[in-house]
Amino acid sequence: MDFKLITTDPSGARAGVITTDHGAIETPIFMPVGTVGSVKAVTQEQLRSDINAQIILGNTYHLYLRPGMDVLRKAGGLHRFNGWERPILTDSGGYQVFSLAANRKIKEEGVVFQSHIDGSRHLFTPENVMDIQRNIGADIIMAFDECPPYPSEYAYAKKSMELTHRWLDRCIRRLAETDPVYGHAQTLFPIVQGSTYKDLRRASAEAIASRNCAGNAIGGLSVGEPENEMYEMCGIVTEILPAEKPRYLMGVGTPWNILNNIELGIDMFDCVMPTRNGRNGMLFTWDGVVNIKNKKWADDFSPIDAQTPCFASQNYTRAYLRHLFVAGEFLALTLASIHNLAFYLDLVKTARKEILAGTYGEWKRRMVPQLQTRL
Amino acid sequence: MDFKLITTDPSGARAGVITTDHGAIETPIFMPVGTVGSVKAVTQEQLRSDINAQIILGNTYHLYLRPGMDVLRKAGGLHRFNGWERPILTDSGGYQVFSLAANRKIKEEGVVFQSHIDGSRHLFTPENVMDIQRNIGADIIMAFDECPPYPSEYAYAKKSMELTHRWLDRCIRRLAETDPVYGHAQTLFPIVQGSTYKDLRRASAEAIASRNCAGNAIGGLSVGEPENEMYEMCGIVTEILPAEKPRYLMGVGTPWNILNNIELGIDMFDCVMPTRNGRNGMLFTWDGVVNIKNKKWADDFSPIDAQTPCFASQNYTRAYLRHLFVAGEFLALTLASIHNLAFYLDLVKTARKEILAGTYGEWKRRMVPQLQTRL
Repeated sequence: MDFKLITTDPSGARAGVITTDHGAIETPIFMPVGTVGSVKAVTQEQLRSDINAQIILGNTYHLYLRPGMDVLRKAGGLHRFNGWERPILTDSGGYQVFSLAANRKIKEEGVVFQSHIDGSRHLFTPENVMDIQRNIGADIIMAFDECPPYPSEYAYAKKSMELTHRWLDRCIRRLAETDPVYGHAQTLFPIVQGSTYKDLRRASAEAIASRNCAGNAIGGLSVGEPENEMYEMCGIVTEILPAEKPRYLMGVGTPWNILNNIELGIDMFDCVMPTRNGRNGMLFTWDGVVNIKNKKWADDFSPIDAQTPCFASQNYTRAYLRHLFVAGEFLALTLASIHNLAFYLDLVKTARKEILAGTYGEWKRRMVPQLQTRL
Repeated sequence: MDFKLITTDPSGARAGVITTDHGAIETPIFMPVGTVGSVKAVTQEQLRSDINAQIILGNTYHLYLRPGMDVLRKAGGLHRFNGWERPILTDSGGYQVFSLAANRKIKEEGVVFQSHIDGSRHLFTPENVMDIQRNIGADIIMAFDECPPYPSEYAYAKKSMELTHRWLDRCIRRLAETDPVYGHAQTLFPIVQGSTYKDLRRASAEAIASRNCAGNAIGGLSVGEPENEMYEMCGIVTEILPAEKPRYLMGVGTPWNILNNIELGIDMFDCVMPTRNGRNGMLFTWDGVVNIKNKKWADDFSPIDAQTPCFASQNYTRAYLRHLFVAGEFLALTLASIHNLAFYLDLVKTARKEILAGTYGEWKRRMVPQLQTRL
């Protein structure tokens, strides 16, 4: 993997290009979440041509449980399995083990947990999570970390962070001892933790930076803390993480969260919000947020969003999409998901243009209140 | 509407072209069912380009309840509302009133029923069902009929058939008194009834033929009767219905039902089977029927169906589709629906080629057992 930082705007926002063996990614970028090997309710063709996704996510925890390593290995990896030939990033399973699995027990060795599907017992260690991600075959893979809840006591947050750092060294070692399974390169991103404690975030950012990996991530944010704390932590960390490496803020967020964090020097984002909220009828547009189930859209025959360059957004009306939601039609989920993802991709693409023009800060200050408007 | 019968194969199978103000339909044709204004889990672009649907159905009963006439009228009709610019056919609501609505009461005037959604009371008459279909704006509209259940007593079937004939005359009168709402022509198809009684089917076919409408339909079949009875009734009716008009067998059926009925002189079909069964993991292919949830497909990395000319069928594997079903992913519903519909459209397209070549009978005898194979 290669990262070329093209420019840093006066505001601090960055534009760059990540190159992987499965193609290039223009940053800042938003990565749709394809939990179990599919971005929910969206086909891979729609991701390519309607949404213009450059990279998607897979979740190690989910893929490990279903379809399982045997099938993914036989398929030739996730790219071949789901037919997505552009870059893929997998998380490490850390977050899901803590948010989904039952009866988890954290030890120095790793985490013992029960599957949320059938209650079966499993062990995730830094080593086997690297092996699993080798078998999935993503271009960018994540270190195994503990993601402490919000709020966390200082003592727990510190202990957890230190465990995450020790696990990181085991991940790095394991990767050094093993080769990619499918020929293409796989790049590890370590994860900064430290909850909402400034000194821990600083310490973690320094520890992570010292490992000199090709890219770095910030985890443990957008887990319930106030937005201001998220921005404060992110700002502290991006001051320390090396400028010449891409920075990935995990699990964030709303359109305005993304624009504010881009200004803090973040290059990569992922979030289930455009798809999950879309499936509940919440649409993000350039003019603000739409609850499409609202009666007011029943006879609004204007496009879902004329400004988002996407066939679905421009060629289906708000009245039609509302009708599909009210009638409980599957197509509602698909159209809302496509629109929201296309909007998110257009948001970061437009942000990139403003960065390249050196006008990001002013543009962002104008956009944030507009994006937050309730229509 | 115009129908040109191009050829009748030695077997009795027919190839033709129906021309409507929204374009041409090559017969024999299968029409995907878009109940509430969307073919479930499929976008209009997928219908056009992946599935090659030439005409889709809308259900008057469903569209009348949701989104309702006010919205459809303001939208400019169903074509503008759902963005489907090719031909549309609407049923008359008769079948749904009898299969879905609660507390229905049949009178000479029409049917009083309660909505299955909110229990509200409504009255369908031949006259207002014509008005409703005017407002929906389909190219082909259906007469309001009573669809008796299977089995029905002879006396009931006869009484019901006679009511359907009287209602037909009221439909014809109402249409003569009213104009299309959106400028394009709307063509009425009356419906032959008569349950599984040969003399009633003959009498009904003669009564329907005598009205000299531009196309004719056969209803009340595929409602639980043995397949042989369906074919027998269909054969009796098609001997009487005029050859120069298209014949539509409503609600049928499996791929082999379609091939057998084409041989009996049927030109048009619709059925929820490819979408509904698809959503349950039942796939129709040129080699037979696949239960894609079956464990045996878990590591079968061959295409869903290499023979069906459809991107989804050829570019996603059986293993991947099975995984999506097992994991409960929405994409499973979409891919299975697209594949099954593309297969049904390919089936009738291939049938048409065989008819034009004069080889339909032999081809059909070879195909039917193959299509019925359980893979």
